[in-house]
Amino acid sequence: MIHKEVPVGVSARHIHLSEEHVEILFGKGYSLTEMKPLSQPGQYAANETVAVVGPKGTFAKVRILGPTRKRTQLEVSRTDAFALGVNAPVRESGDIAGSAGIRLQGPAGEVEIEAGVIVAARHIHFHTSDAERFDIADKQRLRVRIGGDRGLIFENVVARVSEQYALDMHIDTDEANAAGVKNGDTAEIMEKI
Amino acid sequence: MIHKEVPVGVSARHIHLSEEHVEILFGKGYSLTEMKPLSQPGQYAANETVAVVGPKGTFAKVRILGPTRKRTQLEVSRTDAFALGVNAPVRESGDIAGSAGIRLQGPAGEVEIEAGVIVAARHIHFHTSDAERFDIADKQRLRVRIGGDRGLIFENVVARVSEQYALDMHIDTDEANAAGVKNGDTAEIMEKI
Repeated sequence: MIHKEVPVGVSARHIHLSEEHVEILFGKGYSLTEMKPLSQPGQYAANETVAVVGPKGTFAKVRILGPTRKRTQLEVSRTDAFALGVNAPVRESGDIAGSAGIRLQGPAGEVEIEAGVIVAARHIHFHTSDAERFDIADKQRLRVRIGGDRGLIFENVVARVSEQYALDMHIDTDEANAAGVKNGDTAEIMEKI
Repeated sequence: MIHKEVPVGVSARHIHLSEEHVEILFGKGYSLTEMKPLSQPGQYAANETVAVVGPKGTFAKVRILGPTRKRTQLEVSRTDAFALGVNAPVRESGDIAGSAGIRLQGPAGEVEIEAGVIVAARHIHFHTSDAERFDIADKQRLRVRIGGDRGLIFENVVARVSEQYALDMHIDTDEANAAGVKNGDTAEIMEKI
């Protein structure tokens, strides 16, 4: 039995934008510019931010992650969702049908999205070679432990396997704070569910 | 083997004040007034609130819980601690030596506390009869599960046993949001650690 250790990446609130929405928010023909690369190959934090305006609260500067996607998706913690006043469901990335809407404001314009606000389901990105080494299949649910004073065992952690991915467990700020961990700490896969 | 189910109580940020600090913040001879009782007998949420001012952020209205205590203690989540800009340690209630300081403002005055800002360690209050029924001793550490989509198993849950307590598991808002639970949901004690 090998040790199945995985680095932890903490996702603060962020947004993925469609090309159409980039142009509405930042102007016709505008392209996002890269501030720094993320752990997943090809993904980056952009220099640009947008304001997110909910019925109860506003976040003035939400970081945009690039490149653009087919559909705009805002990922928040439940704490954030309460502050905004929206009822964001826990969903896997891309699964936004029927999720919460919100207003986005950029320097060139604003847009109201009907859906796209989610709390991202906890998940682990596996490169295909990691998945083979750990004997784990795409979409499998895992039980994963983060130890320490505020030790937590996370159930229903979704495995996502691709040649495009680098090994990383993604949890949101509520989950990270509940476990008392920060970026780069280590989690251990205990078992498949 | 009996089912060891426990109701969950979610603690939002709150403060306990010493009598001395009540008088500084609200005026000489002032007494807190009860808004509503809490789950623990004799404890109550007061009508009064204070402003809490940290180096990075402020909470304008933090609920005071009564009655007064020997020492002032502000309980926040890690999310709150980051927002305030203070390094609040995870501690059991009352164990405030060397914890973070903060400025408190009331209608009659303000006070800077040197220590007293903590993130409360997750714990379960047991009435003596519950502890006997569950075969659990004071200060024992437990592993406790909250199921569901965002299922979590909490390690290092501290048992606190007293004739004065009513059965209730206390977690903070980060922990509740990470588990997707609300007041009155149910947790299950799995085992002693």
